[in-house]
Amino acid sequence: MVSTVSAKSSSAPERDPQNMQAAASSLRYLPKETSVETLETSPNQSLMPLNAAVNDQDHLSVGGCDVVNLVEQFGSPLYILDEQTLRTACRQYKQAFEQYYPGESLIVYASKAWNCLAVCAIALQEGIAIDVVSGGELQTAVAAGATGEMLYFHGNNKSLEELELGFAADARIVVDNWHELKSLNQLTIAAGKTATILLRLTPGIECHTHEYIQTGHIDSKFGFDPDQLEEVFAYLSKDGSGLNCIGLHAHIGSQIFELQPHHDLPAVMVRWFKVAERYGLPIKEIDIGGGLGIRYTESDDPPSIDEWAKTVCESLAAACKATDLPLPKILCEPGRSLIGSACVTAYTVGSQKTVPGIRTYVAVDGGMSDNPRPITYQSVYRVLAASQMSAPLSETVTLAGKHCESGDVVIHAASLPPLSAGDIVVVPATGAYNYSMASNYNRVPRPAAVLVADGKADLILRRETYADLVRQDCLPDALKPF
Amino acid sequence: MVSTVSAKSSSAPERDPQNMQAAASSLRYLPKETSVETLETSPNQSLMPLNAAVNDQDHLSVGGCDVVNLVEQFGSPLYILDEQTLRTACRQYKQAFEQYYPGESLIVYASKAWNCLAVCAIALQEGIAIDVVSGGELQTAVAAGATGEMLYFHGNNKSLEELELGFAADARIVVDNWHELKSLNQLTIAAGKTATILLRLTPGIECHTHEYIQTGHIDSKFGFDPDQLEEVFAYLSKDGSGLNCIGLHAHIGSQIFELQPHHDLPAVMVRWFKVAERYGLPIKEIDIGGGLGIRYTESDDPPSIDEWAKTVCESLAAACKATDLPLPKILCEPGRSLIGSACVTAYTVGSQKTVPGIRTYVAVDGGMSDNPRPITYQSVYRVLAASQMSAPLSETVTLAGKHCESGDVVIHAASLPPLSAGDIVVVPATGAYNYSMASNYNRVPRPAAVLVADGKADLILRRETYADLVRQDCLPDALKPF
Repeated sequence: MVSTVSAKSSSAPERDPQNMQAAASSLRYLPKETSVETLETSPNQSLMPLNAAVNDQDHLSVGGCDVVNLVEQFGSPLYILDEQTLRTACRQYKQAFEQYYPGESLIVYASKAWNCLAVCAIALQEGIAIDVVSGGELQTAVAAGATGEMLYFHGNNKSLEELELGFAADARIVVDNWHELKSLNQLTIAAGKTATILLRLTPGIECHTHEYIQTGHIDSKFGFDPDQLEEVFAYLSKDGSGLNCIGLHAHIGSQIFELQPHHDLPAVMVRWFKVAERYGLPIKEIDIGGGLGIRYTESDDPPSIDEWAKTVCESLAAACKATDLPLPKILCEPGRSLIGSACVTAYTVGSQKTVPGIRTYVAVDGGMSDNPRPITYQSVYRVLAASQMSAPLSETVTLAGKHCESGDVVIHAASLPPLSAGDIVVVPATGAYNYSMASNYNRVPRPAAVLVADGKADLILRRETYADLVRQDCLPDALKPF
Repeated sequence: MVSTVSAKSSSAPERDPQNMQAAASSLRYLPKETSVETLETSPNQSLMPLNAAVNDQDHLSVGGCDVVNLVEQFGSPLYILDEQTLRTACRQYKQAFEQYYPGESLIVYASKAWNCLAVCAIALQEGIAIDVVSGGELQTAVAAGATGEMLYFHGNNKSLEELELGFAADARIVVDNWHELKSLNQLTIAAGKTATILLRLTPGIECHTHEYIQTGHIDSKFGFDPDQLEEVFAYLSKDGSGLNCIGLHAHIGSQIFELQPHHDLPAVMVRWFKVAERYGLPIKEIDIGGGLGIRYTESDDPPSIDEWAKTVCESLAAACKATDLPLPKILCEPGRSLIGSACVTAYTVGSQKTVPGIRTYVAVDGGMSDNPRPITYQSVYRVLAASQMSAPLSETVTLAGKHCESGDVVIHAASLPPLSAGDIVVVPATGAYNYSMASNYNRVPRPAAVLVADGKADLILRRETYADLVRQDCLPDALKPF
């Protein structure tokens, strides 16, 4: 039986209600007085999946499943993806765009955050299209049911083979540069069929979490420079007979907490739109990309999905009104803010080491292979003791990974109760850029992933075996040992 | 036909001998006047594989194979591993230790740099043992023929299952901490058979490329703190009946260019050795770990394998003589310096983008998925135009990867000739921590790897297919689209 976080259950022995409260508040940081059972909570503002709770065993539960039991059943480490949180994020995006934008809208999941069959299938069930950036992501999205207007194909250096795959799937191809534009035009003319494309442009707006600049040229490998715009439009209207250009795309950054840059972006795109009209191009879509941030720690304070959607929708509608432009279809491409908070990673504690006067290391059975963000971006995460949720957080330790690299540290200063080998800990907000960036460094198998909902867990990614790790290996005869 | 770098072939049209010379000097930076055909060149000091040359087609050749032809045959991107360079490094380590150390010695390949069947098999053929850090690396080494005294098992958090695998393979288990020591002792006593172990200790010496500190305690997740030494020895002599402790191990860092820290390490280890003797432990091996750096750019200037070996061997012999200790067997664990310079990665050029007044981006068909070191460690690499070696290096461009991430840049300021789509470029010194850390980010398949020697190329790692990328995916019935 699962109790909600705010309700205290007194049935478990030696449980201190005050620690229980501490566990509850560490469990989920909510900036406002909101209920987790409704759509009012924005998943990207929650440190944990929306239905995370403490059960009678004093264990963490997600999606109604006891995390300790999940590890027993599916092994460790384990990605645990909460279906309710993911679907809630999808619905919030969809509903907010329907509410705030007077024209048509489409939410497109930036699947590079976590591209796999199950996640693509859930997004599609929610009416969310899929954005892919490679042939591999494309084939996954297609297998999940994406095609035509539900499939957008990005990338700064698509190969000819990838363009052919995208064309065959009738994907909307977001053309990034001249090389691609001309290659695709040739390909489609040879095939006697047009491709539906959008153009990616660099909008002169560059944004990181708390930094925002507007500039003439953006030093980015992606997209056409604004100076090339008219030349591209002229090419399309004159020579691009294989290309049906229906939209413009821009993306200004990732993990953004400010609303101003996304408020400013539509006006830039409407200016381009007006130029395209002069060239007679049938543009009808404006894709403003993604970028909304999520909460990784208590101090992170991103806007809600609703606030973000309101900002971009109202801004685009206003810009269109000011320039007498009929409302285009608006598209946005959330990745991290759609799935980041829906997943937690469970690890099993192994060895410990105390360096006198310096620190204690608590090692888990994963690390930089299943979550490369701390070593790559110095990303900061939180951790919970899933197997003893109400225990006092009396220790400050370094949560180390199992990889043979001193930089393989999951969390540098983690507040935890005293732990023993076999205890289960959980790192929240690992839905984005964890499985997708996972490696086999040290020939460590990639973990399994389960989808949890209503107390039921389904495998969505099988754990790799030792046999999988040598699948690509071949040994020339001269090197055979026996 | 392959010409050596210094010889100029005049048969190719439009080839400027001066550019040829520039290509040659950019091709391989050698700090001294040495011949590449002998063991005198230390592979870790060479930017390129030792036999890299420019052939009659004005193409780069490695191991006598035309790199452009290799890409045609095996696809792109492609890891090209030169057998001669790898075997030369193995032999230089082996011969130097035999020359400079009056006792027994063993070179152990730190296979985390690149653990695969073929590389392990080559090392074993050269009489080099294999150091592994996980069950996955262990099974690979065992499949290549490693066992017993030719197999060393490291790791700060080996699981019980991994310990059992190591024990079954009769590996030398390098015990890292108390949890492992006691778990392994229990396991061996239950099995009625002893395990042969070494102890990993933190030596109070910490070193990075150009920084070196000696301190009482090292803030590291690895190894026993020196303060625990006597307690561990006491445990082993009293309760550790399942453990046969034959050696002590320390590792002080990676990509080190200074000789002083490795000069100072043996004296520390000899002091521990003397303490172990007092507890009656049968210690007979001192393993000084690895750490010798390699050249990634012209400004990198690591010592040679010979100089490094001379330093550690003479230092250990002197420390033993000063304390009347019979010479232990000396072990060292090179990884990067054994294999780093033996491999180059070939990429195919795709799209290009010029940002007016800022820079030109040249995109290749790989990036952070096949070489995560630039984005993870800000590592700097060089690049050559393998398909037009004598062309003037008139451009300074940013070599971008194909991943949907602005940080996915292979090289920030690369000197190259003007390139077109389809040109082949080569990034040298990618033998260490490239394939081993590779991911499927953006669901990009991991490249193939070939072993080249005497004009012949053998596949050692098959390229992943799109089918491989969805091998772990499962779709619960409720999510099936059709």
